[in-house]
Amino acid sequence: MRVEIVTIGDELLLGFTVDTNGAHIARELAAVGVEVVRRTSVGDEASEIAGAVRDALERTGAVITTGGLGPTADDMTKPSIARLFGRELHVDETLLAQLAERWRKRFGTELPASNRQQVAIPDGARVLTNRHGSAPGIWLEDERRRWVAMLPGVPREMRGMLADELLPLVRERAAMPNESPRVVRSRTVRTTAIAESAIADRLGEIARGVDGLALAYLPGPDGVDLRLTSRGLDATAADAALTHGAERLRERVGRHAYGEDAADLAAVVLDACRAAGLTIAVAESCTGGLLGARLTAIAGSSDVVVGGVIAYSNDVKVRQLGVDPDALAEHGAVSEAVVRQMARGVRERLGASIGVGITGVAGPGGGSPEKPVGTVWLAVDLAGAEPAVHRGAFIGDRAEIRYRAAQHALEMVRRLVAGASRPR
Amino acid sequence: MRVEIVTIGDELLLGFTVDTNGAHIARELAAVGVEVVRRTSVGDEASEIAGAVRDALERTGAVITTGGLGPTADDMTKPSIARLFGRELHVDETLLAQLAERWRKRFGTELPASNRQQVAIPDGARVLTNRHGSAPGIWLEDERRRWVAMLPGVPREMRGMLADELLPLVRERAAMPNESPRVVRSRTVRTTAIAESAIADRLGEIARGVDGLALAYLPGPDGVDLRLTSRGLDATAADAALTHGAERLRERVGRHAYGEDAADLAAVVLDACRAAGLTIAVAESCTGGLLGARLTAIAGSSDVVVGGVIAYSNDVKVRQLGVDPDALAEHGAVSEAVVRQMARGVRERLGASIGVGITGVAGPGGGSPEKPVGTVWLAVDLAGAEPAVHRGAFIGDRAEIRYRAAQHALEMVRRLVAGASRPR
Repeated sequence: MRVEIVTIGDELLLGFTVDTNGAHIARELAAVGVEVVRRTSVGDEASEIAGAVRDALERTGAVITTGGLGPTADDMTKPSIARLFGRELHVDETLLAQLAERWRKRFGTELPASNRQQVAIPDGARVLTNRHGSAPGIWLEDERRRWVAMLPGVPREMRGMLADELLPLVRERAAMPNESPRVVRSRTVRTTAIAESAIADRLGEIARGVDGLALAYLPGPDGVDLRLTSRGLDATAADAALTHGAERLRERVGRHAYGEDAADLAAVVLDACRAAGLTIAVAESCTGGLLGARLTAIAGSSDVVVGGVIAYSNDVKVRQLGVDPDALAEHGAVSEAVVRQMARGVRERLGASIGVGITGVAGPGGGSPEKPVGTVWLAVDLAGAEPAVHRGAFIGDRAEIRYRAAQHALEMVRRLVAGASRPR
Repeated sequence: MRVEIVTIGDELLLGFTVDTNGAHIARELAAVGVEVVRRTSVGDEASEIAGAVRDALERTGAVITTGGLGPTADDMTKPSIARLFGRELHVDETLLAQLAERWRKRFGTELPASNRQQVAIPDGARVLTNRHGSAPGIWLEDERRRWVAMLPGVPREMRGMLADELLPLVRERAAMPNESPRVVRSRTVRTTAIAESAIADRLGEIARGVDGLALAYLPGPDGVDLRLTSRGLDATAADAALTHGAERLRERVGRHAYGEDAADLAAVVLDACRAAGLTIAVAESCTGGLLGARLTAIAGSSDVVVGGVIAYSNDVKVRQLGVDPDALAEHGAVSEAVVRQMARGVRERLGASIGVGITGVAGPGGGSPEKPVGTVWLAVDLAGAEPAVHRGAFIGDRAEIRYRAAQHALEMVRRLVAGASRPR
């Protein structure tokens, strides 16, 4: 089955809004084996909407729209598509009563007259229930079984309606009698603290793909994500191939892989510490609280995270962490000697099992030939073990350098806790 | 002048990539008075590209494409559009020499044969120089003056080429003999610590717009942004109207407005402190370092930010900030008594002029009838002044509650430093 997506709204043509709805629908359809062949965005004008939907229907006979279902005069999607199908619009009294009731409960007032048009339904249409907002969706179909599904433009409402109402209908319609549909699905193996080229070397003969799955390298501040994509298999075979492919990647990449898909390294570290009965304290200079913020972003982090010291000034490094003023004077704040003392100091003073120290030059100013922008010293001090220390040379702007430094620190904790050797 | 945008790439149809290129081009064109009437995304297939560009050309005679200019077999944009125009492709030897030279310098090897197709240029085309990558852009025009401009899909390369090469050409082409072009431009007044409805009340008769400018309310974790949009004026008149309109909004919104367009409240606060010769230290419980991270994200923050204490556990609150254990026992960690002591403690111990304290229930667990999720106590302690204290009831998930708490704390610092009264 081939589908086109038409997203509607002047904001899209003015570039005020990025079309995340179109991307979401495309991904969800690909995952159940429905091919999106074109995406179109048009403004709120009736003739433009009708033109784009008519052309799309002629090409594929199957169109999903988003936007233009609200209560204002701008919202032209339903009338223009109903006219295309030669249908009249009539207010659905049951839906109207429900909407008025919801309105009274929420705002304590009568439903404004302008909201009536939200429950005007084209004759012969099927209503798609909206559990997250006031505008119902519409499924309209002609005698040749060509169909248009209209979803609201508010992302939360659109996503719910797509999952609950529309995808089941589309899957039913797409089902072919004697074969399972071919799907496009992907799985990502997340790596960090290793370069793209070093990963390719480790992968060897599977560097371009494995088991017929395409492999993409997606480098970013988190590290390099390895995305496997399956095309042309049915859902069961695709999932099995992706599971096996991801395992093969992980075997080769080894300790550099920390999780799959949306895995967050901070959550992985918290789980590892929790399992080992360890607590963490952080001492942050150039990252200024970013590492603490990442760890505490995870719900339930309080059983592992004790706290930390944001040691932005040298005075705080000395007074709150016990860094030796002579070490600061001799080696500078961005040095191995200071980062070791920061990590040990925060661990001891805050009473944690693990102390993490970060001090570096995030830029854009402050660099020198010996310590250029991007130079960051990292230390992880685990009671009773030799501290892990690393001098990073991170790339990017100030925000990226800080983010990469915090990510690398997390990875050092993960490896130290896992008992593996330290990252180079 | 009316233009269509065609973005090319299988990733767009699979939803792996969100079409930020299309939004960027649309915004830049609107700002110089060029109307985008439709955006289309197609896959990497030659027939799909040709079909979409042909249809767009028939509607408007002016098309901008992105993507499909790379060196691999997937990159079909140039050959398919050249065929549409009935032109042959020939390798440009000058461009080839330049590309080979760049390649040698960068990688120390000969240019791979596959890269030759990047400098194959349709006969009669104008080359758009790429200062940020290897694929040149193409401007192709027929005898009826209908044109297609092809830009690369890598956002950094596309943006540079659009600004340096294509926009000047489009402006030249769009210029009408006797009138300045009508543009669409916008300006945003940023507010925080005030509800949307309260803003509308304050705006009174300009709540729907001012001076013929449309007004949109855009609520988010930063606060409510007020976006004014000018349509139908030329650039000079639009800028004047936006400046005047923004002033009128700011008069009505008063101290709740902290900046315009991309202004970051953290940078505003740092500037205000710097001007007043004040320094800041933070004591963060539920935000776990987020406020420190926001402040130190700004380059040059070290002359204002001394540092802070991430006081996630009660023990750290007592030992590192001097919070009274009895106050913790009596009122709980999320209380006015504790947040006041956190703010004063971090100010005194770290030797700053201003201490900020944050302690709250970020959720999803940990709420109670008295202190539901979203309850956050905030205090700003400025030496010699009565501390500002606020009990926030922030909405959203854990990430939003934490972000809103840090943002509100910044706003409290801004107002205290400005000598204005505190937010309610």
